[in-house]
Amino acid sequence: MKLMSRQEALEKLLSVAVGRVLFNHHGLPGIRFVNHILDDGQIIIRGHGNHIATLISTDNTRLIGYETAEIDPATLTGWSVTVTGPAELVTDPRKLAGYRAALPPWADGEQTQIVSIRPQLVAGYEISRNSLSETA
Amino acid sequence: MKLMSRQEALEKLLSVAVGRVLFNHHGLPGIRFVNHILDDGQIIIRGHGNHIATLISTDNTRLIGYETAEIDPATLTGWSVTVTGPAELVTDPRKLAGYRAALPPWADGEQTQIVSIRPQLVAGYEISRNSLSETA
Repeated sequence: MKLMSRQEALEKLLSVAVGRVLFNHHGLPGIRFVNHILDDGQIIIRGHGNHIATLISTDNTRLIGYETAEIDPATLTGWSVTVTGPAELVTDPRKLAGYRAALPPWADGEQTQIVSIRPQLVAGYEISRNSLSETA
Repeated sequence: MKLMSRQEALEKLLSVAVGRVLFNHHGLPGIRFVNHILDDGQIIIRGHGNHIATLISTDNTRLIGYETAEIDPATLTGWSVTVTGPAELVTDPRKLAGYRAALPPWADGEQTQIVSIRPQLVAGYEISRNSLSETA
C-alpha cells in the first residue's frame, strides 16, 4: 500500500464523479452515495434522499467522511481517497443554483439538498502489484 | 429509492467480490477495502494491512459496517447494501486455512488477518429511473 500526498489524493478524488459519504448514526457507521464537485477548496456534494441533510442539520459540528475510489475486483488493485472534515448545508440561493446546475440529480429524481465539506484530513492510498512499502 | 428485503440484499452482496468495511476510529468514520465470502451466515472478509484487525482486537464488541454496491456514475443508478454487526478475528487454524484459500490476497501481498461479521442489520436500496417511492 502506497500513501498519496494531499495534492495527489485530491486530484484522484476529482478524477471520478461519485463517492460515498460516511457518517456515524447513533454509534453505527453509515454510508450514502453522492456525486461531487470541488469549489474553492470545498467538496460540494449532492445526494439522493434527505438523510445526510437531516444528519447535518441536527449537528453543525458533525465531522463526516467522504470516500472515492476505483478498485478492480479482478486484480485486487486500485486506489482510495478519504477526506474528513466539518460539513454544512449550502443555503445561499446563488451558490445553490450554480451547484444544482453543475451536479446532475440522481436518476430517481428525489428532492435533495447540497452539502459542503471542508477537507481537513485527506488520506489516500494505492494498491498495486509493485507496492513495496507497508504503511497501514 | 427502493428498499430491498434482507434476502434480496444478501443476494446482491454475494453478487460482487469486494466491499468496504466501515468503522469508527477515534470518533471519525473510517473505511477500508476488503474482499468477502459468506460462510454459515457470516460475512468473512480479508483486507490488506492490519488496520481492521487491530481495531477489532482492541474491542471485541465493536460493531462495524460492511458495504457493497454497484453504482453507474454515468446514469446515477445502481444499488447499495450495508450490513452492520459485531466482528471478530478468525483464529481457528482449520477455518483460517479454508478462508485464505477461498479469498485471494490483495495485489500487494501484505500480511492480512481474516475477520467474520455477523449480519445483525441488513439494509439495501436500489436507485433506478423508475423508482416511485421515497423511503430515505
